[in-house]
Amino acid sequence: MIDPSIYFQSRRTVRRFSDREVSPSLVESVIARAVKAPTCGNMQLYTVIVTRDEERRKTLAAAHFNQPAAAGAPVLLTVCADFNRFTRWCELRGADAGFDNFLSFTSAVADATALTQQIATIAEMEGLGTCWLGTVTFNAPAISELLKLPALVVPVGALAIGWPAEEGEETERLPLRAVMVEEEYPDRSDEEVLELFKSKEDFPQNSVYVKENGKDNLAQVFAEVRYPRSMNEPLSEAFLKYLAKQGFVK
Amino acid sequence: MIDPSIYFQSRRTVRRFSDREVSPSLVESVIARAVKAPTCGNMQLYTVIVTRDEERRKTLAAAHFNQPAAAGAPVLLTVCADFNRFTRWCELRGADAGFDNFLSFTSAVADATALTQQIATIAEMEGLGTCWLGTVTFNAPAISELLKLPALVVPVGALAIGWPAEEGEETERLPLRAVMVEEEYPDRSDEEVLELFKSKEDFPQNSVYVKENGKDNLAQVFAEVRYPRSMNEPLSEAFLKYLAKQGFVK
Repeated sequence: MIDPSIYFQSRRTVRRFSDREVSPSLVESVIARAVKAPTCGNMQLYTVIVTRDEERRKTLAAAHFNQPAAAGAPVLLTVCADFNRFTRWCELRGADAGFDNFLSFTSAVADATALTQQIATIAEMEGLGTCWLGTVTFNAPAISELLKLPALVVPVGALAIGWPAEEGEETERLPLRAVMVEEEYPDRSDEEVLELFKSKEDFPQNSVYVKENGKDNLAQVFAEVRYPRSMNEPLSEAFLKYLAKQGFVK
Repeated sequence: MIDPSIYFQSRRTVRRFSDREVSPSLVESVIARAVKAPTCGNMQLYTVIVTRDEERRKTLAAAHFNQPAAAGAPVLLTVCADFNRFTRWCELRGADAGFDNFLSFTSAVADATALTQQIATIAEMEGLGTCWLGTVTFNAPAISELLKLPALVVPVGALAIGWPAEEGEETERLPLRAVMVEEEYPDRSDEEVLELFKSKEDFPQNSVYVKENGKDNLAQVFAEVRYPRSMNEPLSEAFLKYLAKQGFVK
């Protein structure tokens, strides 16, 4: 495995994968280790669905808007927040299972998301490339139907996995003081907020995106091109409706 | 750092900490590496609040129901889903920021939760002990007030961190086939569900919990003692109300 004193600060997302097979035993071994990550009360409120079948991968990639990482990966993992298995067990044992509510959903989301991150870390330390597919919640109802998710199961994390065919792009991060603060949330002035984003705005590749999209600045690329209100609000409504259908809103 | 070929499968949660100081530079170095974890569109939709001050730690630990790990740790980290900073930047740049909705909240939750997990992993590989405090959402409104969280900021991950004063308890996990499945969600019979939980029910320490709580079986301990409906449902209602107050439900 890659030396951790090098790995963590230098990791990159990989979006192009080689034809080399990712063996089922390696995927199994990665997930077997990842489940040692923390889980709420040791309830393991998650299920990982492994998609390898070519036809299914194509359909699933389409639900991820056919982004290249999803379309080109030999293995897709969908990590679901899952209170179904635990609830069935409780009911079979005559226990009153009160997990059909939003608080329980947040616990399952934490479990499933932490597991997704741990899988990504272990896979990358084994030399695999991974790309986290944030689109998993954008299109959760369609993904849910494809994977036949029952009540109390909702997809919340997704990874494209394969042997890397690229090094991965270098991305910038905000200065640490933007994201790590002492004791309480700071009351920042407008100037201070702008200053935190200065290095991001100055990052060479980001200027390219501004030009390509015909915008005045990077904030507009994010808010008006990549994640516009006109996309967020209908998807948000659909997701809330889907959550209710899965039995998690009470 | 700990050898990853040993670390992942043997990690344990630590709930008792020594008096040895956890230096600010070590915490900073852990978080600086953790922010290289994947983040939605590289927006870094999180803020980590570091609590070291003794009085504040006591108050925050009380909001975590004074569980020993929270009460005894020299450092508490609260990781918040944060669309406030990003929205302010967009608005200051004249961009229409449409992130005051539930979909955007789920993106920020994914970012914050993945970061929490990455912090835990790096801290533990540095030899620190950590305990994930799932209570962070159980008492989110109170924690939010203590940390002065503004609109579009919600606490979703929390870690107690310190140098370990114990090895940590061994916990069992479900068989891998319970949590990892191929291609689609399985349609399991009642017998199959019960079989998946057999090793958990047979785990020696779990029998102790059944006896201590005067219950018939382990499922009842979870559903009726640890996470009862009578606790989940009011906390769920309070959390949803709080989410709306923070501006994330649309």
